[in-house]
Amino acid sequence: MTFKVIKENILKANDNVALRIRQKMTQEKTLMINIISSPGAGKTALLEKIGPMLKEEGINFIILIGDCFTSRDAERMDALDLPVVQINTGNSCHIDAQLIEKSLEDVDVSAQDIIIVENVGNLVCPAEFDLGENHKIALFSTAEGDDKPLKYPLVIQESVLAIINKIDLLEYVNFDMEFSKQSIKQINPNIEILEMSCKTGQGIDKFVQWIKNNITKKEKKV
Amino acid sequence: MTFKVIKENILKANDNVALRIRQKMTQEKTLMINIISSPGAGKTALLEKIGPMLKEEGINFIILIGDCFTSRDAERMDALDLPVVQINTGNSCHIDAQLIEKSLEDVDVSAQDIIIVENVGNLVCPAEFDLGENHKIALFSTAEGDDKPLKYPLVIQESVLAIINKIDLLEYVNFDMEFSKQSIKQINPNIEILEMSCKTGQGIDKFVQWIKNNITKKEKKV
Repeated sequence: MTFKVIKENILKANDNVALRIRQKMTQEKTLMINIISSPGAGKTALLEKIGPMLKEEGINFIILIGDCFTSRDAERMDALDLPVVQINTGNSCHIDAQLIEKSLEDVDVSAQDIIIVENVGNLVCPAEFDLGENHKIALFSTAEGDDKPLKYPLVIQESVLAIINKIDLLEYVNFDMEFSKQSIKQINPNIEILEMSCKTGQGIDKFVQWIKNNITKKEKKV
Repeated sequence: MTFKVIKENILKANDNVALRIRQKMTQEKTLMINIISSPGAGKTALLEKIGPMLKEEGINFIILIGDCFTSRDAERMDALDLPVVQINTGNSCHIDAQLIEKSLEDVDVSAQDIIIVENVGNLVCPAEFDLGENHKIALFSTAEGDDKPLKYPLVIQESVLAIINKIDLLEYVNFDMEFSKQSIKQINPNIEILEMSCKTGQGIDKFVQWIKNNITKKEKKV
């Protein structure tokens, strides 16, 4: 069996489970988003910012955090009393749909307005794996340089929203914002782009608004 | 066949080729290093700095650059007139030994003091794949945060040298240098650590010295 065939089979098995997850989310009117970035681009920092804001808005959510080995990011959510499920992928560089299905076994999906997946820090394979989410979101950091969209186009193609984080560092790094945005739009003309700083809080409100625009708000269960 | 068995078979096929490459390097007295980091941590910037310095020292080298699709990094080497071979991995998130063997087909290995591999930007899978190199080198950026060694321990375990890049950003980012170094040493007590800024040039000379200490210098062919 060639590597190509092996990979096709792995993706096919994944997609069957992803389909089942998507059907369940549709049935329960629960939105699922899948946030993809390099290590250290700011996925967890973003969740630390929006988590308390979503709570304040009365939005019901749960965060699924993917990490190879540790539970460091999940502990950061715990410290803020945010609802979190840890997914350890071991030596695997991405979350697959099977892991999502398993992690949702003890979650009351019907009670959630949104399920937020923080993928493993990696711009390559996470873009290939359908987790049954409604939307993939690509997150970049200005510190990584402005050529990352061009170098990792698949994650842009697959995403509906691109977040450019760490704009507070713009004056200290080589990053041409216009070039970066043009590259992103060139790969995916329909994608929305948000500039953000999880450090200063700039742009966070726009992402919370994006979430509010995309969920189907449910009444809280009593 | 389970995924675990499939992966074991892929790694076994890889390791057979890696062994062949390592034997050839030993025979030709050519050092091979394999630089691994996240996207945008500064692998290419590092090569832009050391390339001209190695040339000036009369060290013969060739750079093998791994990228999923583009040749952007190789073009940056070309612009500096540095000897480079482009390796495109497609949707694969790492270079494997088979790709290295193929890329060396047209290279006169016996003429090189050192072969420098720049892996695909990814901290997970590249750590698992033996390319027949003598040494793996892990490169981190301060902008990624100080917890990346703990979150991606395999690359630290497998490396002899850890480079902490972008120290010029230290005052603008949350990065505890002592914590980072302690984490690295905790995972691999024998690893050497270099602080660096590819922007200001700080620490670059130490890496060039490290290379000089590790190669077997050859007479230039006339």
